[in-house]
Amino acid sequence: MRVATVPELGGLMIVDAGHETCVPARQTCLQSALVVDDFRATSSGRHEFDPAACAAPLLRSHTFLDGSAYVNHVDLVRRARGAEMPKRFWTDPLMYQGCAVFDGPTTPITGDAAWGIDFEAEVAVITGDVPAGASPDDAASAVRLITILNDVSLRGLIPDELSKGFGFVQSKPPSALAPIAVTPDDLPGWDGRKLNGTMCVDLNGSPFGRTQTGEDMTFDFGQLIAHAAKTRPLPAGTVIGSGTISNRDASHGPGAPVAEGGRGYSCIAEQRMVETLTTGSPKTPFLTQGDHVEIWFEDADGNNAFGTISQKVETT
Amino acid sequence: MRVATVPELGGLMIVDAGHETCVPARQTCLQSALVVDDFRATSSGRHEFDPAACAAPLLRSHTFLDGSAYVNHVDLVRRARGAEMPKRFWTDPLMYQGCAVFDGPTTPITGDAAWGIDFEAEVAVITGDVPAGASPDDAASAVRLITILNDVSLRGLIPDELSKGFGFVQSKPPSALAPIAVTPDDLPGWDGRKLNGTMCVDLNGSPFGRTQTGEDMTFDFGQLIAHAAKTRPLPAGTVIGSGTISNRDASHGPGAPVAEGGRGYSCIAEQRMVETLTTGSPKTPFLTQGDHVEIWFEDADGNNAFGTISQKVETT
Repeated sequence: MRVATVPELGGLMIVDAGHETCVPARQTCLQSALVVDDFRATSSGRHEFDPAACAAPLLRSHTFLDGSAYVNHVDLVRRARGAEMPKRFWTDPLMYQGCAVFDGPTTPITGDAAWGIDFEAEVAVITGDVPAGASPDDAASAVRLITILNDVSLRGLIPDELSKGFGFVQSKPPSALAPIAVTPDDLPGWDGRKLNGTMCVDLNGSPFGRTQTGEDMTFDFGQLIAHAAKTRPLPAGTVIGSGTISNRDASHGPGAPVAEGGRGYSCIAEQRMVETLTTGSPKTPFLTQGDHVEIWFEDADGNNAFGTISQKVETT
Repeated sequence: MRVATVPELGGLMIVDAGHETCVPARQTCLQSALVVDDFRATSSGRHEFDPAACAAPLLRSHTFLDGSAYVNHVDLVRRARGAEMPKRFWTDPLMYQGCAVFDGPTTPITGDAAWGIDFEAEVAVITGDVPAGASPDDAASAVRLITILNDVSLRGLIPDELSKGFGFVQSKPPSALAPIAVTPDDLPGWDGRKLNGTMCVDLNGSPFGRTQTGEDMTFDFGQLIAHAAKTRPLPAGTVIGSGTISNRDASHGPGAPVAEGGRGYSCIAEQRMVETLTTGSPKTPFLTQGDHVEIWFEDADGNNAFGTISQKVETT
């Protein structure tokens, strides 16, 4: 099953496998559908499916917890500033509590260019109810939907905010979700704990990232959800992010840009870190007025599973 | 207007000034009432008001951002471990993104006693829609309801979690809200930016804290909400916490316990910090099986404005 939220068609829609048409779901919003576990379609009219008319499949969650499961990304951040990463980061997931109100796939990214606006391409799962203390196996079985998200990050605000010790607030504005979320049984690349395929990022029409989501994911979604649920129950509709997709290269060094035959990156910051490690300083600027970010996921057959996040940047 | 959520009576209720009776609201849940700004009562039957039957007024928000507006508390934490507090903490609010699913006023506090379970008595406001970039004045005018909350904190998990740099997840389980939330016009102690009165905490029936909420609040709610909204809009139903109420004593040193004639504290950790500063080591243990925490707020006339948070501890 593939679901999308199309406000002008009345809310939650069930989308066909080819992403060409959709019919209204019995539940008008995804939050309700998750609470009652009902993703059935109505028998009313079929509509053309227009990704540009989509809001986020889940407009507002009660909980968005974003992991950093691709520890390679964290390792690179640290190395670029000459700091060693604590060894426990390989065994104890990094996770922060994020903004649970989501932008749609074509909502402009707005803000002050001086904030250092960046994207982060991530896999996200949406859960049913998860009891406190759930095991990773039980947590994995609570996954109801999978999609991708753009965790917009304000790099210029992060150092000052994190140095205060309480995590991200101002430096992580709303993330955008892809047009479509897919149930596990209709997603060939989903192995029950991870998503296997290619996270594609284009910046201003040029390939920027072609990373493999199934590789280098140190913590799978069962582990991430269990980490989130250690001391609290998670309500149906909880969104858990994977963190920026990041692959090591064959020699376990920083990977190369797509233009140089590498897999590239899922955020500008990582490309800048690699530039810093290889040339001494970053070259790629953060986002500015008119920039265009496109993020989509391709399964092993080359199908775009969730539709494309396509956001333009409007700076103030 | 005073609102409460009583599940067995169908949801949102309008409570009389004496907290003795209630009638159903036109909107069945507070989230809807906030979205459409409708707190009117129906003309259907009047019921006896039973605080013990109350859930949290707002069961689930989309956003809970908790400040640390009583900087004295932060200063004491630092001094107890021999660290100096950065000067900018007096001008740049500390704030973290918390669990937006709320326990009711009599929900037991559950967990492993080894986690170091503590309470934190705080003032909280619930907002209408706040646009991104709102000024402190505009932010203050978006306050729709005021209440109090118990920000349950797992002290034993905090050092490891905060040392990872991404803020609280496991160490801040759900907070509990008081039975009643009150609109600004019906709350004598509300001055438009701060709440003036006494935050009362009893632990196992003995006075533990009698702090003044209107004193030593370095950042008012207008400033806290504006801080939260700097880079994102806040949806109606956003909960903003004040952080633990904490007063300096007359000599700007740590205050004394209630039993010694002082105002006491709004969390066990602060009493332990003062014990560490004055005797070299903490004496008061964190919460354990059977402990009983009661938190309420008294206005200048001695009225209990929001009803009492009354939670027992059930450890595993």
